[in-house]
Amino acid sequence: LEAWAQTRAGRPFTPAVSVENAGGEGRFVIVCDHASNRFPAEFGFLGLPPEAREAHIAWDPGALGVARYLSGAVDAPLIHATVSRLVIDCNRAPDAADLIAVTSETTAIPGNAQLTAAQRRERVAAVHEPYHAAIDELLEERLATGRGAAMIALHSFTPVYCGKERPWDVGILFSQDRRIALPLIEALKACGFNVGVNQPYSPADGVYYTLSRHAESRGLACAMIEIRNDLIRQDPEQRRWAGILAAALGATEVGSEALEGSAA
Amino acid sequence: LEAWAQTRAGRPFTPAVSVENAGGEGRFVIVCDHASNRFPAEFGFLGLPPEAREAHIAWDPGALGVARYLSGAVDAPLIHATVSRLVIDCNRAPDAADLIAVTSETTAIPGNAQLTAAQRRERVAAVHEPYHAAIDELLEERLATGRGAAMIALHSFTPVYCGKERPWDVGILFSQDRRIALPLIEALKACGFNVGVNQPYSPADGVYYTLSRHAESRGLACAMIEIRNDLIRQDPEQRRWAGILAAALGATEVGSEALEGSAA
Repeated sequence: LEAWAQTRAGRPFTPAVSVENAGGEGRFVIVCDHASNRFPAEFGFLGLPPEAREAHIAWDPGALGVARYLSGAVDAPLIHATVSRLVIDCNRAPDAADLIAVTSETTAIPGNAQLTAAQRRERVAAVHEPYHAAIDELLEERLATGRGAAMIALHSFTPVYCGKERPWDVGILFSQDRRIALPLIEALKACGFNVGVNQPYSPADGVYYTLSRHAESRGLACAMIEIRNDLIRQDPEQRRWAGILAAALGATEVGSEALEGSAA
Repeated sequence: LEAWAQTRAGRPFTPAVSVENAGGEGRFVIVCDHASNRFPAEFGFLGLPPEAREAHIAWDPGALGVARYLSGAVDAPLIHATVSRLVIDCNRAPDAADLIAVTSETTAIPGNAQLTAAQRRERVAAVHEPYHAAIDELLEERLATGRGAAMIALHSFTPVYCGKERPWDVGILFSQDRRIALPLIEALKACGFNVGVNQPYSPADGVYYTLSRHAESRGLACAMIEIRNDLIRQDPEQRRWAGILAAALGATEVGSEALEGSAA
């Protein structure tokens, strides 16, 4: 896991990606694209006041806490971005219109309004590329050594978006591969939760980039989990939701065929 | 359901018991012994300041809200006391030492310290007897008409008791009859919850009075559910927990033999 770090060698920049429990022996690999609301000094605060930098537009509150507990519960590696999605969204394609958002929900992002092509490339190189390089490297290493690599992307969503209340406790998003998502949805529904099926958004909204790029391209089983962020504000709630997800993921019984992939 | 009400006829006292959805067609009957922190004027505030009357020693915060949503979800009658347990505890035998508590956790209850035998009898007659008479009447009517009467007692517990943290999300208490409790425990554990089995207390602590008196005596299936009260503070959480319990109770598959009872 040194390649991506070396690309930043000699630069005064805290790495844009963090890898925890890389050697985890479970079936899963967890990614948390929107784990952080850190705004590195070299990009500044983008003209945003503190309250905007702490709001859900800047990150997925609570998601990293759940991801860490889940990583422990299922002994999975955890890869997470350490930079706000408003600097650059690691879960968007490099050519996506909302890769570097000019407006998020109803908030204008002044520091993103007039970027030059060179400035955009700089953010891609500083954050997006090392994040995905770290995922690539970890997956290749695990696949080469026969370890599990079914991918879970963990996110949180705001209970109210553009003034509209969202009813779901948790949303499960999936695209072509449904080996994790369908049994996970059933398990969570059987526990009494209000489960959004490809809600509050779906891969059609362009929000499935990380899993499409790394899991579906390799034939790995994958699913995206979105937890309503007011359910995971505090540490005990994050631990509880990790337990709920670990139990529900246990019901998925993704086998080795899913873990090792079928085609690239 | 008029007998208990008539015993209070002509007296300036809001009924000590409330029955909702009496004709519910589901398998279950729900009781909520500690639903209320109301202190009727005829007994006064027992010398307690407002904060003590709002604390868990006076009632089971959140339990009534969950019980109501659960009553709707499984179409069950709901019977609940409308008077604080500090006036008299409806879930204690009439001869129990803590029927009218002189101290609760670490709080002295001044108004209970020097009661005469006549004053104790008055509270039994005003609250305890009508509460249990209402349960008797509803159960007999349902059994006579072949309706479901598996009993669920819904409570909440304080996360910290006498300075000691309790780890459980939910506790399931049972005594001789285990037809509901054992599958319910398994269902909740399978959902990832930390489930107390006869924790944070058990029938041996004398807290199983309502179910012993009404369900076990009639051979009815029964279980007591204790939810950690910081999980059910707000209405959305109460609704969510009712959904969780309804789903888990759905897994119990208590049959008609349990509903109709085997012996008195």
